[in-house]
Amino acid sequence: MTSPNKRVGVIGCGPSGISVLSAFNQAQLNGQTIPEIVCFEKQDSVGGLWNYTFYTGTDQYGEQCHGSMYRYLWSNGPKEVLEFGDYSFRDHFGKPISSYPPRPVLKDYVVGKAKKHDIGRFVRLSTIVRHVEKVGDQFSVISENLKSREQKKELFDYIIVASGHFSVPSQPTYPGIENFNGRIMHSHDFRDAVGFQGQKMLLIGNGYSAEDIALQCNKYGVKDITISYRSSPTGFKWPEGVREIPQLDKYENGRFHFKDGSSDSYEVLMFCTGYQHHFSFLTEDIRLNAKNYLFVEDLYKGIILNKNPQIIYIGMHDQYYTFTMFDIQGCYARDYILGKIEIGNEAERTADIEYWGEYFSKVKDGHDEIDYQRDYVTDLLKYCDYPEHGHEKRAELLHRWKGERKENITTYRDKSYTSVMTGDVGPIPKTPWMKNMDDSLEGYINTI
Amino acid sequence: MTSPNKRVGVIGCGPSGISVLSAFNQAQLNGQTIPEIVCFEKQDSVGGLWNYTFYTGTDQYGEQCHGSMYRYLWSNGPKEVLEFGDYSFRDHFGKPISSYPPRPVLKDYVVGKAKKHDIGRFVRLSTIVRHVEKVGDQFSVISENLKSREQKKELFDYIIVASGHFSVPSQPTYPGIENFNGRIMHSHDFRDAVGFQGQKMLLIGNGYSAEDIALQCNKYGVKDITISYRSSPTGFKWPEGVREIPQLDKYENGRFHFKDGSSDSYEVLMFCTGYQHHFSFLTEDIRLNAKNYLFVEDLYKGIILNKNPQIIYIGMHDQYYTFTMFDIQGCYARDYILGKIEIGNEAERTADIEYWGEYFSKVKDGHDEIDYQRDYVTDLLKYCDYPEHGHEKRAELLHRWKGERKENITTYRDKSYTSVMTGDVGPIPKTPWMKNMDDSLEGYINTI
Repeated sequence: MTSPNKRVGVIGCGPSGISVLSAFNQAQLNGQTIPEIVCFEKQDSVGGLWNYTFYTGTDQYGEQCHGSMYRYLWSNGPKEVLEFGDYSFRDHFGKPISSYPPRPVLKDYVVGKAKKHDIGRFVRLSTIVRHVEKVGDQFSVISENLKSREQKKELFDYIIVASGHFSVPSQPTYPGIENFNGRIMHSHDFRDAVGFQGQKMLLIGNGYSAEDIALQCNKYGVKDITISYRSSPTGFKWPEGVREIPQLDKYENGRFHFKDGSSDSYEVLMFCTGYQHHFSFLTEDIRLNAKNYLFVEDLYKGIILNKNPQIIYIGMHDQYYTFTMFDIQGCYARDYILGKIEIGNEAERTADIEYWGEYFSKVKDGHDEIDYQRDYVTDLLKYCDYPEHGHEKRAELLHRWKGERKENITTYRDKSYTSVMTGDVGPIPKTPWMKNMDDSLEGYINTI
Repeated sequence: MTSPNKRVGVIGCGPSGISVLSAFNQAQLNGQTIPEIVCFEKQDSVGGLWNYTFYTGTDQYGEQCHGSMYRYLWSNGPKEVLEFGDYSFRDHFGKPISSYPPRPVLKDYVVGKAKKHDIGRFVRLSTIVRHVEKVGDQFSVISENLKSREQKKELFDYIIVASGHFSVPSQPTYPGIENFNGRIMHSHDFRDAVGFQGQKMLLIGNGYSAEDIALQCNKYGVKDITISYRSSPTGFKWPEGVREIPQLDKYENGRFHFKDGSSDSYEVLMFCTGYQHHFSFLTEDIRLNAKNYLFVEDLYKGIILNKNPQIIYIGMHDQYYTFTMFDIQGCYARDYILGKIEIGNEAERTADIEYWGEYFSKVKDGHDEIDYQRDYVTDLLKYCDYPEHGHEKRAELLHRWKGERKENITTYRDKSYTSVMTGDVGPIPKTPWMKNMDDSLEGYINTI
């Protein structure tokens, strides 16, 4: 049993942090006593990755730039999958909106949830966590206000790490690329497709980043885009001007050479090679070393660090379920901290982790992955009272979505889904996604 | 008196760190007992900024990229000013070389000095310092090997901060620039001028970065470059294709508007707005807050943190003198740690700092700055036995250099200087700098 008279430090106030704080707010609304909570957010506003910044590399404070968002980004999954169980899109927008909104619309929705739960009272904005280490049974946290440069050292009983894992690039190298005269960059620093017009682009990687940036650039007038895959092509039916080729081998004499023996020259080499779990502010003993991102073997119930259960990680999985998974993880974390959930001893926790590891080892494809994550979240739901929100049915939407993407990568965002919570039917966009150049909140709201 | 039986932690192994380690090596060669020294270097090789990397933003380990170097960078000051007192260019290259060598040549020279002093025995490469804090009379240093991810927590009696101050961008913003579709970047991420061919560039700032990058880009075929200055133009006679205009006011409707009422459109907006002293790994109480970079009021003798004299900063000034100043600061730091120099109490130290502050307040222009820094280093030399190396005479070279730059910014690198140590006359380059596209070590050595 843990007592509510404890101090909880939450690191990060993006969707995962907001979920945690909302969960605690809900408990308080329900008449429960909650611990003292401090949430540290290094950006100037909440919303995490859903904030857009023109900075790349380092931000205005000289800190590593968190933002990976680019202009004209639209959701790549139907919003009906990520609709918060306690705050529907209808609650926020007052009317049905289409199934694939652009970034500013989703950010507005996330911030709306944060406001509904009045989480501002927990949050220190523009405040970075420099260092966390175990001190006795507690954790010392050194934070710094980036505006005043004032530092504080405080003790907490629980640390909830909600700093995300799409901010620190993972970037390989290839022989000879240091001699390339053009632009070498990671997709983390991609901001505006328009600026790449007239440039011939080579994208390394075949995940969501490469796919979406290739499409973006194609949509905004870049004529010649090559995606280089490591193991297998995406198989999508690309529009004219986008092609896929095997892995890059080397750069030599002004040309990029690929494993299939072909070679070509480019102006831009962009690594769309994903991100790493990177927690430089935590000492090694409490740091997550995630290897497999859909099943994380160090985490009990996918959130509690097994070797030190006062450290909790939120949203550290690779994701099909997103916002609702963070919410439910947040509820579980809250009830555990409030002493309402018993987690057993380390051996018992390990046995549970092994069960999920065993299950995950049988997962064969993307559809299995969806079902695996559905079942993982279903398991969490058994322990906490998150509102009924059609969790199981959402897996069906995900399976459908996967099929539609495969069918046509340029039109899947024009489809309509029905909310499993409100029954709202997402209106079909008046302008197909490939033709719609206005991603502003106002433009979007006024045309649906 | 301090004892040699102490532990010294040195952070960074660029020129400043190498100077410190060389100084200790020299003392050991002279038969003195030196403390245990550990130098932490986050890059994979010594040399600091003189290393070149194609990474921008974050490096291969997900850490903030240290490197600000770009291809085709040549020294912007005569090498005769920075020639090490204990290791001449003749010692290293065995023959006279021209006065303005390219980056790989200077890097080779710096590494040569490091090898001469066998500093490798002190250095932990690929090892970042995460956190330093005062613990009793010592300092706890948490470092992390970026390859193995192993962390260590160790105690030191002295911390020497030699991590440089040209790595963390200082970047302002202007109204509307978040709407600019082109590339927004800081000069920290500039790597290769060739990649900017055909692009119209706006550089913000009129310091060394803007000047050198404008010239580079002009030299490598960029046709249209605008430098926007804040207070006054550089006054250099720019080649065709480079112009200077007053400060940027805002970005609106696809155009950049300037304070003189003019406006224009660009493809690249590059902030050449310098760097900040940024020591995120140090707690606030031991962190340098430098405001004026030629005179640093928190530092006794320009190196010892007055409020905590177990913390020493090397190379934190703005620089006319560079390598030799670091060397002499390193010697002073060494002799202080070895107990051979008494620094007095805080009030006495403050009085000395005030003397230099008073002197600095009378400095009116660049020539005064040169003399000021000459006298500052002359003062340090009184306390330690760095080899005679013509320190005072080098100021004359600097005055001459300043005049030649003003006279012709495109040809000053073709001049010859004479070493005040060896009497070697720098050969006039066979190919003028503006026409010489080969900046390789081999190409350079073979053609002089």
